[in-house]
Amino acid sequence: MKKLLNAKERIVDDMIDGFVAAYPDIVARGSNPRVVRRASPAPRDQKVALLIGNGSGHEPIAMGFVGEGLLDANVVGDVFAAPSPDIILEGIEEVTGEAGALLLISRHEGDVINGNAAAMMAEDDGLKVRSLLMYDDISSAPKGQEDERRGAAGTMFIYKILGAAAETGMELDDLVALGEDVRARTRTLGAAVFPGVSPLTGELMFTLPEDEIFIGMGVHGEPGVGRRKVEPVKDLVSFMVGELLEDRPIEPGTTTIGLINGSGGTTLMELLTVYNEVASILSAHGLPAAAPMIGSYSTTQEMGGFSISLFTPTPEMMGYWCAPHQSPYFPRIHSAERTDHG
Amino acid sequence: MKKLLNAKERIVDDMIDGFVAAYPDIVARGSNPRVVRRASPAPRDQKVALLIGNGSGHEPIAMGFVGEGLLDANVVGDVFAAPSPDIILEGIEEVTGEAGALLLISRHEGDVINGNAAAMMAEDDGLKVRSLLMYDDISSAPKGQEDERRGAAGTMFIYKILGAAAETGMELDDLVALGEDVRARTRTLGAAVFPGVSPLTGELMFTLPEDEIFIGMGVHGEPGVGRRKVEPVKDLVSFMVGELLEDRPIEPGTTTIGLINGSGGTTLMELLTVYNEVASILSAHGLPAAAPMIGSYSTTQEMGGFSISLFTPTPEMMGYWCAPHQSPYFPRIHSAERTDHG
Repeated sequence: MKKLLNAKERIVDDMIDGFVAAYPDIVARGSNPRVVRRASPAPRDQKVALLIGNGSGHEPIAMGFVGEGLLDANVVGDVFAAPSPDIILEGIEEVTGEAGALLLISRHEGDVINGNAAAMMAEDDGLKVRSLLMYDDISSAPKGQEDERRGAAGTMFIYKILGAAAETGMELDDLVALGEDVRARTRTLGAAVFPGVSPLTGELMFTLPEDEIFIGMGVHGEPGVGRRKVEPVKDLVSFMVGELLEDRPIEPGTTTIGLINGSGGTTLMELLTVYNEVASILSAHGLPAAAPMIGSYSTTQEMGGFSISLFTPTPEMMGYWCAPHQSPYFPRIHSAERTDHG
Repeated sequence: MKKLLNAKERIVDDMIDGFVAAYPDIVARGSNPRVVRRASPAPRDQKVALLIGNGSGHEPIAMGFVGEGLLDANVVGDVFAAPSPDIILEGIEEVTGEAGALLLISRHEGDVINGNAAAMMAEDDGLKVRSLLMYDDISSAPKGQEDERRGAAGTMFIYKILGAAAETGMELDDLVALGEDVRARTRTLGAAVFPGVSPLTGELMFTLPEDEIFIGMGVHGEPGVGRRKVEPVKDLVSFMVGELLEDRPIEPGTTTIGLINGSGGTTLMELLTVYNEVASILSAHGLPAAAPMIGSYSTTQEMGGFSISLFTPTPEMMGYWCAPHQSPYFPRIHSAERTDHG
């Protein structure tokens, strides 16, 4: 295995060490070394704390999104494994005050079980905590069973928008409602092109014929809905956007944000090419494209692939989406709308 | 070949289409479709224009760095090929006014020949143009022959610092002098871990035994200075930083910026681990580490590898390095100094 590491057992801690050494004005370790929190805590009696616990190996998500205007803390699990309820609880305790906390949970089995357990323990301890399940991957359960779907890259809309909203002093119940509304307006579909290598086993995470692409594979190699032969990207994207718009039709004239997330090993050259096709298709449907996010932000090691997320924000959501923030690896979002693409 | 593209002949143009569609408030096409310029041109009688022509396939460098506080334009060549002098000239003409222009040239043969030819043609046309050769890769020529070295990731210090300085109204000759001083203070050494795939041929760009890492390989697969067996990253980084500090010793107490650039297929998890080792070594040498840049910004498709650049800024340079900017893919630099790492 050719990963740049010291020892498997040290991967996560070495990574966190490097992260807090690099950005000491923004992030710090919590009392538990697997908790990464803001260097300057927000006023806990006035601001709801926003946090998530998740397996590592997908960086920059979620550790790289801690900071003002985004997350208050991230509880970092082992590679591809949810952190234990105890450590998530420590993370909650680290950042929760009078205003309470919102625990985001991307819908994957371990994350859900451990996150819910931690939230219950925190409530038992007298903390005001709510959790929000995040799911957006249309390939993982059929239409009508949205709440059985997996969390995918489209969850980043929730991170950013709730992060900005919490900064304004929005209360806990309102944040949950806002998050549910963002979730309802988001759909994601991914494609896997070639596998990444697990840093734990040194092995390829799946196999895929040289002339095929998986549609809908999850971030840990979970099975997708189908395969397609390698084809011009225009045709692949046309199929994928078609599936997204069939799952959730969008009224012409509705401002639509496209998020093109790379899986790690896919070049920006390719991701921009994908966005070009997405923007063309949206334009053909009479949908003004605005404020996109294009890059590798929710990754699976050096896996080749990408996902397309479509999200139709309210004006309030758009404001939060484009609001400034201070986290090291969430991009600045540029708001300009463009309707003349074609 | 499993690249996400429509046709080889369209790669670069599709990518540029996607880029200008995504960020229309920041970038626009010039009169020549291979020129990407700022959407809102700077006042050309007051501000020196900063631009570069280079082969594509290394994104986000350099197209992703066009915008306020950075580049005025990028002339985008074919994949791994410098643009022709004629097109570079069009780029120069597009952005040059009374204040003149500075053409950055990363020292690779085609870039040097075509860039110098374009600068001469522009001068013949009566434009005030100077060029600045950029080189920082210590593996490509011995100490004492610095001006025969290749340009590598450390050239990004020049982009950012001259970009911010030009924005303040600094004059052309002063910008050149500042750029030469940044260059003199920068050294880079890279390591290649696994090859990327050329989008032109569909083939791996080089071969490398499963248990070896190349030291000093260039961004197009140019030969490096040696090979090392796969080893703990601590040992690899210790060797590389040792080479950098031998080539250019740094006085204890000198603030040092570390730039860890990923080649495309190396995870952020690994790059942060590399930075952790770099910061430890700098600390052991009594060098305060500050304002790092860690991510995949100058890439070679999905090649695995990274480079370490060390740069010792003056306070003026540090100010420019951390100044705000508006380009889509250059990260925000956080200035905080940290001396207690260990």
